Amino acid sequence: MPKIDINQVPERKGSGYPPPFAALAGARIKQALGDAGGLVDFGVNLTRLPPGTWSSQRHWHTEEDEFVCVLSGELVLITDDGEQPLHTGEFAAFPKNCSDGHHLVNRSAQTAVYLEIGSRHANDRCHYPDIDLHWDSAAGVYTHKDGSPYP
Amino acid sequence: MPKIDINQVPERKGSGYPPPFAALAGARIKQALGDAGGLVDFGVNLTRLPPGTWSSQRHWHTEEDEFVCVLSGELVLITDDGEQPLHTGEFAAFPKNCSDGHHLVNRSAQTAVYLEIGSRHANDRCHYPDIDLHWDSAAGVYTHKDGSPYP
Repeated sequence: MPKIDINQVPERKGSGYPPPFAALAGARIKQALGDAGGLVDFGVNLTRLPPGTWSSQRHWHTEEDEFVCVLSGELVLITDDGEQPLHTGEFAAFPKNCSDGHHLVNRSAQTAVYLEIGSRHANDRCHYPDIDLHWDSAAGVYTHKDGSPYP
Repeated sequence: MPKIDINQVPERKGSGYPPPFAALAGARIKQALGDAGGLVDFGVNLTRLPPGTWSSQRHWHTEEDEFVCVLSGELVLITDDGEQPLHTGEFAAFPKNCSDGHHLVNRSAQTAVYLEIGSRHANDRCHYPDIDLHWDSAAGVYTHKDGSPYP
C-alpha cells in the first residue's frame, strides 16, 4: 500500500560536512520518505531540527530545485536578502542555479519539523557563500573552494 | 525572497477531464506553488478538496513519480488493494510505472488540504483503470483507451 509508515523509515542523524562545518548542521534528523516509497525522480525528506540548530550550511545548487514546507514549529529562513520567519504551514522554493544561498535556522525552543523536496542530478554542484566549502556530486566529495581535498 | 506568499498564487479550479469524468474531480482547487517559486524539475501543488469530492480519477503515470502530504483534514486513499485513511500529517508515494491506480477521496465533512509533488516528463502517459480514458502528455490530449478522440 502506498501510504508511508514513518515508523518504518530509518532515521539519519548528522551531516557529511567536514569539520568544523558539521557542528551546527549535525543535529538534524532526516527520514527519506521518497526513497522509502520507491521514488527516484526527486527526494523527499521529513526532517526534524532541534532548537538552536541549522538545516545545513547556507548553500545553493547549480542543478537541483528545492522546496520546503514547515509541518510544525517555526524556523528562520536566511538568504542574501536577510531573514524571514517560516511558520507552520508556510513554504519556500529555491530554484536551481539561483546564486542566493539559503538555510533554515531553528531559534525557537521547540523542535521544528519540515518536509524538503529536491530534484536529483548527477552533475550538481553546491556552493556555500559563507565558508570555504564546495560540493561536486559527480565526484561525491566536499572540497575547499580551490578544489583541494579536506583531510 | 524565496518564501511563497500563497495569497499571491493563482487558484485553478476544476479539471481538464472530458465529461462526465470531470464531475467528481472538478471541485478541487490547486495553487501551483512550485511554478510560483520558479521551480521546473518538479511541480508542487497546494490542493484543497471539498467534502464529497475526488483528487482525480483513479490513475497511474508511466513516467512521473508522485508524492502527497496531508496538511489538514482527512482523506481516503484508494488503490487496487482497497482503501486506507490518510490523516493530517500522513504521506503517500506513487512510483512511476507502478500499475496500481490511486486517487484521494474526501468523505469527511471538512475541506482537506494536501501538498502534491510530481516529476515532469515530456512523454508521460497516464492510465485510468476504472474508466475509458487515456492521457498522452506528448500529444496533450485525453482520448478513449482505443486512441479515438473525445468530442
